[in-house]
Amino acid sequence: MGISGSDAAGTTIGEASEREALRRIFPRLPESDATLVGPGDDAAVLAAPDGRFVVTTDMMVHGPDFRLAWSGPEDLGWKAAATNLSDIAAMGAVPTALVVAIAAPPETPVAWLEGVADGFRLACTELAPGCGVVGGDLSVSATLTFAVTAFGDLGGRRPVLRSGARPGDVVAVSGALGRAAAGLHALFTEAVDAAGEPDASRLAAVVAAHPDTVSAQLRPRPPIGDGPLAADAGATAMLDLSDGLALDARRVAEASGVAIDLDPAALGPDLRTALTGGEDHGLLATFPPGTRLPGGFRTIGAVHEGRGLRVGGRPFDERGGWDPYLEWDGRRG
Amino acid sequence: MGISGSDAAGTTIGEASEREALRRIFPRLPESDATLVGPGDDAAVLAAPDGRFVVTTDMMVHGPDFRLAWSGPEDLGWKAAATNLSDIAAMGAVPTALVVAIAAPPETPVAWLEGVADGFRLACTELAPGCGVVGGDLSVSATLTFAVTAFGDLGGRRPVLRSGARPGDVVAVSGALGRAAAGLHALFTEAVDAAGEPDASRLAAVVAAHPDTVSAQLRPRPPIGDGPLAADAGATAMLDLSDGLALDARRVAEASGVAIDLDPAALGPDLRTALTGGEDHGLLATFPPGTRLPGGFRTIGAVHEGRGLRVGGRPFDERGGWDPYLEWDGRRG
Repeated sequence: MGISGSDAAGTTIGEASEREALRRIFPRLPESDATLVGPGDDAAVLAAPDGRFVVTTDMMVHGPDFRLAWSGPEDLGWKAAATNLSDIAAMGAVPTALVVAIAAPPETPVAWLEGVADGFRLACTELAPGCGVVGGDLSVSATLTFAVTAFGDLGGRRPVLRSGARPGDVVAVSGALGRAAAGLHALFTEAVDAAGEPDASRLAAVVAAHPDTVSAQLRPRPPIGDGPLAADAGATAMLDLSDGLALDARRVAEASGVAIDLDPAALGPDLRTALTGGEDHGLLATFPPGTRLPGGFRTIGAVHEGRGLRVGGRPFDERGGWDPYLEWDGRRG
Repeated sequence: MGISGSDAAGTTIGEASEREALRRIFPRLPESDATLVGPGDDAAVLAAPDGRFVVTTDMMVHGPDFRLAWSGPEDLGWKAAATNLSDIAAMGAVPTALVVAIAAPPETPVAWLEGVADGFRLACTELAPGCGVVGGDLSVSATLTFAVTAFGDLGGRRPVLRSGARPGDVVAVSGALGRAAAGLHALFTEAVDAAGEPDASRLAAVVAAHPDTVSAQLRPRPPIGDGPLAADAGATAMLDLSDGLALDARRVAEASGVAIDLDPAALGPDLRTALTGGEDHGLLATFPPGTRLPGGFRTIGAVHEGRGLRVGGRPFDERGGWDPYLEWDGRRG
């Protein structure tokens, strides 16, 4: 299973010119309300009404970051958009636009890339209306690679950094904890062949058995709108939960020079997965005491004087999360 | 020859944590004058004093876009910066910042990536002072891949598009024509082994024999400052010469609905390479008749009523340039 296997018919990017491929892909991409000069010139020009803009960039590489046996083109476009949009929201900004660079093997059908474009459109439409793709690049590579850069507008808000948590603040989260990691676990234990390799033929059964968690892994739905709401409510610190609650909460504690104590009763029945599972793409934020929490935020702990992370008052030093540097073996693919 | 061969000593990115790798790389990167919030948070925040910003993104993939046998880490950082800066300049904007995503094999030494960072710093310092790297991403991949997104500020200028050339305009270029292609030709004919594969052991001799052209290929020096100067002088159309003068001039003609006639006497002794050689990264612009050409621009032709490209009054339909879709064989590497 792979790119070419998923759609054997039709022109490949090795056969089409870049221009021909882009002519088919661009009409499917979402438009941005911020566009002043769109795709087709050397560069795009975007409105920055705030006089500042927020920018983040992230790559998704086949192997460490996704498997074609499990993710279709729409899934990949969706996830590449959603994870970047979440980083913009975590600053308190409203996502305005994306640029997308894709490197794909020559045998990739252009139709497969149209599916990727559809995923970008669906994600922007559902998660961040008004945000669209304003430019891109298409290259050939032996390794399928997505590089997305996202932009946001602060609308006059102060950007919410990781470093602003203060003793006495409430620790809150928006979005489910551990669900994406549970989905990845289900895929790696049940959607594999006898040798433990990803097996597309077993995907449907695993999706049917674990619809919510597999969907959280393959098509995450970050609470984008809660980012600006948190900033408006006075959030003192915020970040996108990408590497597991424990690791990310420790980052806020360290950047802010405080201790964070999480309440295990607020973290759901599977405490360990909630703490160490990566790719939640919820928002972790701290608010001054007494703040009426906005949107989907709920209290999960408190900020104290001190250093580091505690869970139920006891130091929690497990790393958790997913570090592709340490855990991906490039030779296994 | 490859990444691991160039520096066998030291920690690799497969051994270091992402955090440890970034801690070594970031201090070497150039700083941006536009930075309001720099690296280390979910996203950066940049000043956009004009109320708009210009953005372009481009990937460089090992194989189709560069060879490790010929390019060292500083060369690659330099070229990834320079080619993106040139797209910003071609809109008439001043480059302000870059974000850089790199995917590299696990065996890549962190020291090698420090060299890449040095290349980014040298290029920004020399070509676009005040422009710096404000964020990035580091991933593991079997295929070494750079994805750079660049930003620029128009300072109140109207962006210069490809579509504004008018009959009667002067066609002008800033930067050498065909030199980078001549360098690539020298590498592919002289810096290869008996099987025609890139051979690092022959590089020094080829550089010594063809210093200007090989340098134009490996460390291009686009005339970044001439982009805003052209806009100020009233340029009606402009683009970055990346795919060969003939192909790029035809793009301006097509987007503008005009004919462009180039004067062969103005294109130097090797007319064919000047017309069809890619990766010049000079600026091609059109100016109203009588304009005093700014910076390094020199006249090479004129805009007429009609369609398409002519050279010395005769239609020129050769494609030229370099299309990795059509010309790169991924199986050969």
